[in-house]
Amino acid sequence: MIITLLTDFGQSSYYAAAMKGVILSICPDAKIVDITHNISPQDIDEAAFVLNQTYSLFPAGTIHTIVVDPGVGTERKPIIVKTNDYYFVAPDNGVLSYIFQNSEGAEVYEADNKNFFRKEISSTFHGRDIFAPVAAHLASGVNINKIGKVFTDFEKGKTPDVKIRGNQITGSIIYIDRFGNCITNIPAGLIKNKKISIHIKNLFIDRLSATFSSVGRNSILAYIGSSDMLEIGINSGSAAKNLKIVKGTKVIIQIMEKAD
Amino acid sequence: MIITLLTDFGQSSYYAAAMKGVILSICPDAKIVDITHNISPQDIDEAAFVLNQTYSLFPAGTIHTIVVDPGVGTERKPIIVKTNDYYFVAPDNGVLSYIFQNSEGAEVYEADNKNFFRKEISSTFHGRDIFAPVAAHLASGVNINKIGKVFTDFEKGKTPDVKIRGNQITGSIIYIDRFGNCITNIPAGLIKNKKISIHIKNLFIDRLSATFSSVGRNSILAYIGSSDMLEIGINSGSAAKNLKIVKGTKVIIQIMEKAD
Amino acid sequence: MIITLLTDFGQSSYYAAAMKGVILSICPDAKIVDITHNISPQDIDEAAFVLNQTYSLFPAGTIHTIVVDPGVGTERKPIIVKTNDYYFVAPDNGVLSYIFQNSEGAEVYEADNKNFFRKEISSTFHGRDIFAPVAAHLASGVNINKIGKVFTDFEKGKTPDVKIRGNQITGSIIYIDRFGNCITNIPAGLIKNKKISIHIKNLFIDRLSATFSSVGRNSILAYIGSSDMLEIGINSGSAAKNLKIVKGTKVIIQIMEKAD
Repeated sequence: MIITLLTDFGQSSYYAAAMKGVILSICPDAKIVDITHNISPQDIDEAAFVLNQTYSLFPAGTIHTIVVDPGVGTERKPIIVKTNDYYFVAPDNGVLSYIFQNSEGAEVYEADNKNFFRKEISSTFHGRDIFAPVAAHLASGVNINKIGKVFTDFEKGKTPDVKIRGNQITGSIIYIDRFGNCITNIPAGLIKNKKISIHIKNLFIDRLSATFSSVGRNSILAYIGSSDMLEIGINSGSAAKNLKIVKGTKVIIQIMEKAD
Repeated sequence: MIITLLTDFGQSSYYAAAMKGVILSICPDAKIVDITHNISPQDIDEAAFVLNQTYSLFPAGTIHTIVVDPGVGTERKPIIVKTNDYYFVAPDNGVLSYIFQNSEGAEVYEADNKNFFRKEISSTFHGRDIFAPVAAHLASGVNINKIGKVFTDFEKGKTPDVKIRGNQITGSIIYIDRFGNCITNIPAGLIKNKKISIHIKNLFIDRLSATFSSVGRNSILAYIGSSDMLEIGINSGSAAKNLKIVKGTKVIIQIMEKAD
Repeated sequence: MIITLLTDFGQSSYYAAAMKGVILSICPDAKIVDITHNISPQDIDEAAFVLNQTYSLFPAGTIHTIVVDPGVGTERKPIIVKTNDYYFVAPDNGVLSYIFQNSEGAEVYEADNKNFFRKEISSTFHGRDIFAPVAAHLASGVNINKIGKVFTDFEKGKTPDVKIRGNQITGSIIYIDRFGNCITNIPAGLIKNKKISIHIKNLFIDRLSATFSSVGRNSILAYIGSSDMLEIGINSGSAAKNLKIVKGTKVIIQIMEKAD
């Protein structure tokens, strides 16, 4: 059974390894896959986005474990969400926003049976003491009903809004990758096969390119990225660095007419 | 069989992958888990601390492999330590200090049988040429007596001292995590349920908090961390950065009386 | 079956996890090993070097997957290379230069059967959409002839040249590790057991040392590294930082006579 881990622990810390030790002690056959441990500290929106980009690529039955948890030690509940294909183990803080949006009829449970936690629970590391053992017991075949009870008052979270007014679409940058490519929250469906003008910073880009090499080296381009959303990049360079784009930078699109 | 790796190779290097290739060539069924490869270069104390925070979370039988090895190429021996539950494969440089402290009756062997090393041994990369193959042969079921011989003159290392003088405890910061939380070497047992005043930098903290949210956003707090030791943190911020705390920063505790 | 991943995605990105999800959905038993994801962005030479340092340490049958791919979305082909012991799945951009050099009779195929790709292929992320599924199908036992067809016009790439003129060898730094050790492209065979003088930056080093501790703390040394090539380092320090050595820095060796 596959268990994935998505956290903001940072790649230098031993906290992910602590979770792995706990998981393997409960479920020695678990196959653990790191999504990333480098979510910006306590950035629930970034974690939600990254989860949405990856979870459905894994085999049915995978247990996705998310620990980005600014409210650790407070009353926020640990939850288990069951969709048609996956389990999600996470704090109840909105980090599963896309999952709730994508998965009609998802079942939500509060993990409240301490028999499936570690014996001593610290106030600051529920990843090790609650989320890891819960995921491992699920992987071992324990029924979700034994670990928790149905929970209806959960935090749905929200996914970043795109505003549409007439021919104008307003969105923003929600993720910047290692190459400096800037991913917007504007889905391909809204702009594909249309003649558009894209406004970001003090710059206008007047077409969608197919891929990096469609433009010259060091040229700016807009394209539909691998997440099926609009991205802004520079061929063989970093758009984020060169254009000083950050998460949250606004992107405005003017739709002119259908492209030829 | 699980083999863990704890090194100072850095996350960019291919040295850990080299060890993994060697291990899997000898023991194809080994399950390899990274503790971290981001120990500060040649920092034996940090590695010892991280090992102590994680090793006992793994299933019995796990083989922990530690390569933080400033003396590579010198006469320092490669050793294998067997405790009730675990094996440790490491250079004889004190990195197992906590293990010797925690595990009465640990058996220590010098790994000296070159049949269980790689054929050619470089003078700078014993992780690949000695530690990885030794760990893999252990995982394959080779008896420790075949790989090495009992060794008594080993380096015990030392764990960071806490000084107690009357009502005053003096310790220091021994680890800083990704969030900027600062872990001291002062165990919970010395201060729990007591009224205390904590002095760090030019700051006094006059109580233990239960968790981050016990104080306001951006406020400083002292709490018992997940390692069951005193930690200094800032709710939703970095104590290390804001208070300029580094590894080694002194922490002085005045015990007033029992807490109510 | 082992599948390794070597990319320039960076350790913070979720792109490697996306590849892992795709692989495990096709071949649930695959054992995935990260070589590194921190190759400098689009640095084909660095990836080629790192691959050469690691691939042959893995068991026969391992499928090495390399995604350093500045030409993604262009006409450059995805290729599969079969040597006596390994498979390599990579873009046709020279990243396999050392493999072609080392492996006489390597068979090269263009992966052109879209039945073994993901259904929708983005123009920017062939790691997820082409290379990962091709590697996974190979791991599942699909015959290479079904996935691709023999390809002869491939990019051989080139490995960094060493120039030899009389008693003078000119090479350069091709990799710098986490400790600041600087690896040259000058193989041990050219200099071992000879009396040499090494010129780098404005510095002369007049002997080969056996290992770091052969010289005093903070002293500069030249030695045969774990890759069996000449390296420049500083005992307990960073040669790269202190001597301002970068990738490409020239190294000139004067051979005097046989060493005693």
